[in-house]
Amino acid sequence: MFTKPIDDLKQALGQKVSVAPAILKSHGVDEGSHECALPDAVLFASSTEDIVQALKICAKHNMPVIPYGAGTSLEGQVIPVHGGLTVDMSQMNRILTVNTSDMDVRVEAGITRKALNLHLRDQGLFFPVDPGANCTLGGMVATRASGTNSVKYGTMREQLLTLKVITANGEIIETGTRARKSAAGYDLTHLFCGSEGTLGIVAEVGLKVYGIPEKVSAGICRFDNLSAAVETVIGLIQLGTGISRVELLDELAIRATNQHGNTNHPEKPTLFLEFSGSVSAVNDQIATFRSLSSETQSSDLEFATTQKEINALWRARHQLYYATKALAPGKDTITTDVCVPISRLVECMLETRYDIEKSGLFGSMLGHVGDGNFHTILLIDPGNDKEIEQVNELNRAIVRRAIDMGGTCTGEHGIGLGKKQFLNWEKESAVPVMQQTKVALDPNNIMNPDKIF
Amino acid sequence: MFTKPIDDLKQALGQKVSVAPAILKSHGVDEGSHECALPDAVLFASSTEDIVQALKICAKHNMPVIPYGAGTSLEGQVIPVHGGLTVDMSQMNRILTVNTSDMDVRVEAGITRKALNLHLRDQGLFFPVDPGANCTLGGMVATRASGTNSVKYGTMREQLLTLKVITANGEIIETGTRARKSAAGYDLTHLFCGSEGTLGIVAEVGLKVYGIPEKVSAGICRFDNLSAAVETVIGLIQLGTGISRVELLDELAIRATNQHGNTNHPEKPTLFLEFSGSVSAVNDQIATFRSLSSETQSSDLEFATTQKEINALWRARHQLYYATKALAPGKDTITTDVCVPISRLVECMLETRYDIEKSGLFGSMLGHVGDGNFHTILLIDPGNDKEIEQVNELNRAIVRRAIDMGGTCTGEHGIGLGKKQFLNWEKESAVPVMQQTKVALDPNNIMNPDKIF
Repeated sequence: MFTKPIDDLKQALGQKVSVAPAILKSHGVDEGSHECALPDAVLFASSTEDIVQALKICAKHNMPVIPYGAGTSLEGQVIPVHGGLTVDMSQMNRILTVNTSDMDVRVEAGITRKALNLHLRDQGLFFPVDPGANCTLGGMVATRASGTNSVKYGTMREQLLTLKVITANGEIIETGTRARKSAAGYDLTHLFCGSEGTLGIVAEVGLKVYGIPEKVSAGICRFDNLSAAVETVIGLIQLGTGISRVELLDELAIRATNQHGNTNHPEKPTLFLEFSGSVSAVNDQIATFRSLSSETQSSDLEFATTQKEINALWRARHQLYYATKALAPGKDTITTDVCVPISRLVECMLETRYDIEKSGLFGSMLGHVGDGNFHTILLIDPGNDKEIEQVNELNRAIVRRAIDMGGTCTGEHGIGLGKKQFLNWEKESAVPVMQQTKVALDPNNIMNPDKIF
Repeated sequence: MFTKPIDDLKQALGQKVSVAPAILKSHGVDEGSHECALPDAVLFASSTEDIVQALKICAKHNMPVIPYGAGTSLEGQVIPVHGGLTVDMSQMNRILTVNTSDMDVRVEAGITRKALNLHLRDQGLFFPVDPGANCTLGGMVATRASGTNSVKYGTMREQLLTLKVITANGEIIETGTRARKSAAGYDLTHLFCGSEGTLGIVAEVGLKVYGIPEKVSAGICRFDNLSAAVETVIGLIQLGTGISRVELLDELAIRATNQHGNTNHPEKPTLFLEFSGSVSAVNDQIATFRSLSSETQSSDLEFATTQKEINALWRARHQLYYATKALAPGKDTITTDVCVPISRLVECMLETRYDIEKSGLFGSMLGHVGDGNFHTILLIDPGNDKEIEQVNELNRAIVRRAIDMGGTCTGEHGIGLGKKQFLNWEKESAVPVMQQTKVALDPNNIMNPDKIF
């Protein structure tokens, strides 16, 4: 279909362009459950100039371009539904500058968050946004990622200082500055953040980083029921405690964690917590938590004391998606992702729990409850049409409820292929303005077509 | 010039539309030094529906529309350089909802920050962004305002949850949600924030608010020289102290403050500081400040202990612009506004001081130094062409230096009429993309024409 542009790409970029079937196949899916679709070619970009050349060729031939980081998206963001060229960014993984005195860095978009943090650690710095998966910073910009830690440090949106973006016609633009604030013109940095590759390709990212806190304490606390756990979190947020992570796992999520990690936690709604800051700040946070939870907890706060124990705790949390999958081999998982104002969180989660039980499906609830954000991981038989329809209906109900409560259809996974209908529910009046913006910046619709809209 | 649309406006909106010369004149300037230009009519909008009707009439006749809040802009943002309809938002000043449990509010765009805070105080809440002037929240959105307090709480950008915007063709759109984060579609909220009325009129604003801190301590500390004061601030920021305000006033600014407020502060570079949070957090902040400043300060930290003293201190800081003007009656003031990475702040301020002295002009330096943001208030004789050219040259040099240091031509005042050239210096590659966005959302260029670009 794209014979001529692929020839041009090969001529310009040589062996960086691959059409090997195994390469195409590995770039045809993400970690979600959306159907595979193959690109016509994959470019392993090693420089901004590679991307510029590729985009100019693709623009000339109206060939779709799909930016690809680590492939960890969940709503089909990287799937080339109309074929085209996938631009794999994984080789653009250099750290360009670390400004320790300003606490900012500039990196190529293909670096992963773990690689960045490994590099920063010796300098006493870290990058806080942590969605679990070891995604690339470019992918995190594209989906406006968040995860644990956002309750204290904010999402990708709050970390961004600058971007280098290649537009649909192959122009290089620089957005933002290293100054911590600016009132100079339209905020393109935040327009590109969350645009899921539909407006251009992010080649470089300038980010805030933070000093590693003086003290970090982590622990878990079990509750007799979901409400008690969530009410405790709401109290923590309303008091502005400054807690750095507060994650909820329900009974089923704990069961999955136990089986996957060979642990033996009682199967009760459990908060995974991290307190960080100065020694006195951490003590304040823990005291506040204890005073809020003392009436309703079913176990006292159990601390992970060594760094090894703390790491093990968060590893268990991060592997939960894979652990839940492992509960029922052969089944597919569907992950929902809504976020509501914190005052509505208990009600939203309890009604969701009720809906799951009513449906007869098997699903755990978990999430970044300090942000009002939670997920349901539902297990379904991919060959069972009735189950698929049931899970879709459940997802629609969960999203409808979140929107009705003043929340959003996606806290962090983005729209991609899976939530286009829901974006219309949530932002009916604003979608035409988004589309006008898309047409202005990508008039031939070559940038990741059919995503978001 | 716009006889027909003004007739239509009067017919649709009655006495809310004024063409009285005194009204036109009061809407022809802002607080900066840009030349007056009159609108053809002023609409005192009292509802979203008023704005929709007005915009539909203006769109039909290609009549410019200029949103107007409190008229406190400094770069000519509200000046109707091509005439047209000024939409005065001051009567749309209602507080629509206060959600104490989620700590957010929804207000009409014409409410001022002081009126909002007066209302919130009884509920133990406050809105932190404080640029000095008693501007409207809509104006603060439009210019991405910041000011004191942003070092701890962030700028307008960080406070915004939702907007209701009337687009150039009179459509109402709702952006954002009350959830604390969302990955749903393009971030239009932040596209409108800082767009200076060139993309639409903000009618309602949803904002985060904060609990009034348990303890607030404020005070001043004098230094023998500017470097020592700024180095102390850099240390505070790099250590992540969490200080809530840290403002620098140089010798001349102190002189102006003394004369205006009948005080007797020694004329030395002085930091105005505010520490806030829990009692232990405030004690930590003060201890850190003292350890950083002990070697270089020329006086110990002098505390303002009562709320009355604290208010007096910040009132003096906020009135500095007017106080400097009062130093030389009959002279005009020109205020510069740059922001640089904090590691470059000492160098940037010292070179600016040197440039001022070399020019022979009379100017004070002050600013939100914790953000890397500072202003120079220069006094000039409006009839003296040589002085005007000197001050323009000085401004160009200050901006050039800030951009070369990785900073921005405006930390908080915006582009308006005064900094269009500088936006091109700073964001040469990105300006075409901003302009494409403008054309997409306002194809007939009726929204605040000739601002930003």
